[in-house]
Amino acid sequence: MKKKLDLTNILEDARPDNYHELALECSWDEYFKVISSRRSIRVFDQTPVPASVIRNAIDAGLIAPTSSNLQQTEFYWARSPERKAALVKACLSQPAAATSQELVVIVARTNTWMRNSAAIITQLRESGAPKSAISYYEKLVPLAYRNGPLGLLGLFKRVYFFVKGLAGPVPREPKSFADIRVWTHKSAALASENFMLAIRAQGFDTCPMEGFDSKRVKKILGLGCGAEICMVVSVGKRGQGGVYGPRLRLPREWFAFEI
Amino acid sequence: MKKKLDLTNILEDARPDNYHELALECSWDEYFKVISSRRSIRVFDQTPVPASVIRNAIDAGLIAPTSSNLQQTEFYWARSPERKAALVKACLSQPAAATSQELVVIVARTNTWMRNSAAIITQLRESGAPKSAISYYEKLVPLAYRNGPLGLLGLFKRVYFFVKGLAGPVPREPKSFADIRVWTHKSAALASENFMLAIRAQGFDTCPMEGFDSKRVKKILGLGCGAEICMVVSVGKRGQGGVYGPRLRLPREWFAFEI
Repeated sequence: MKKKLDLTNILEDARPDNYHELALECSWDEYFKVISSRRSIRVFDQTPVPASVIRNAIDAGLIAPTSSNLQQTEFYWARSPERKAALVKACLSQPAAATSQELVVIVARTNTWMRNSAAIITQLRESGAPKSAISYYEKLVPLAYRNGPLGLLGLFKRVYFFVKGLAGPVPREPKSFADIRVWTHKSAALASENFMLAIRAQGFDTCPMEGFDSKRVKKILGLGCGAEICMVVSVGKRGQGGVYGPRLRLPREWFAFEI
Repeated sequence: MKKKLDLTNILEDARPDNYHELALECSWDEYFKVISSRRSIRVFDQTPVPASVIRNAIDAGLIAPTSSNLQQTEFYWARSPERKAALVKACLSQPAAATSQELVVIVARTNTWMRNSAAIITQLRESGAPKSAISYYEKLVPLAYRNGPLGLLGLFKRVYFFVKGLAGPVPREPKSFADIRVWTHKSAALASENFMLAIRAQGFDTCPMEGFDSKRVKKILGLGCGAEICMVVSVGKRGQGGVYGPRLRLPREWFAFEI
């Protein structure tokens, strides 16, 4: 049992010898154009957004890195006018939502990782992946992300790793449902950034919103337990007065440390 | 008091009439190259990474959107060999860390928003921003992100908005420290994605890691309460066998919904 739980061994062995993927040559200048011209837009004009722009951006979101590749993020694009209107209201009718052409809700799931892990195991088996890769999903993933009824397994893990951690480094999270929430929102946010930059790269703009009624948004999407609203992103073309002002950033030395 | 708490009014009025920022023309193809060639690299080769590459990527991270622009994310780049070695151990010596040229820790802060909000108010005042923008930081931000001793204010907000929410849409989060954690990690993950894509855009590679001993990582960085490790990102050039296999993604229809 002990050997099987050694993360390092499993990760090391998961590497096939024959696969290589060339690093594409990219353009920093072109990338910088995208990130620097992405501003949160509060007022959009009336230009419609082609469906392909949204679909490309969702595809971009879906290839962002996800924790243990468990792919917990979902995108809900409100195409029916009634649903979009309801979402605008649930976003407290803020101008960024009310003037938007499209609204996409990015959802962080806490309960789809078992389904996804099982599907990944099947795919890995079919592709003849090394045993250790399959073992990662069969053994380590359930151990890492399951916290048991009433979080009791999580509590046990917390105590176990606290004691084991006295002797050497141990993984410590997720050890509670609160940690699982952090964990899944993290992956959803990585996907959200890919999505928003993809919209900008195609000539349109976004505003990520957290000021919403999460209960109502979930109801509109038909979602219940195990789903959390990460953010609602509005999409369109920036209108006059849509950017509140020059980008305001506090001194770099408050946030960037070379240690 | 009631009027001042109306999010919509405050947001609507925050818009100055005279500011405009042109949308740069970007290249979808160039952006797609960056996101599609970003793979999690488990083994790096020996090519050194110029300091400018890391600094540019941190700058990219710092212009990602942050919740209410409160800029809670910090980047710690381990430049001393001792600190880097300690971090590798704290990352359970996994190959993605052990073979990396550089390690950058992305930290989500739960307790810097008050300092940042005060600094933003000063800057807004100096730049003659509309009153409502200042009012947003003076009134709404403390109300939204403070949960009070023992989370009692959070509990009050939860009850208050539950009742108010029976009549119409209300903001519901953050109403607990658990929500504050989600909130800050979300912004840190947005910044992390900008960072990782920026490394790729400059010809290098990354691996985002969550398998680490958060307690030890914090100790290495000299951080205590109010700081959480969002992820440790390793940087370098992909080595032979560094990509485990072709990108494995489950069926798109599991994750993308047009509703």
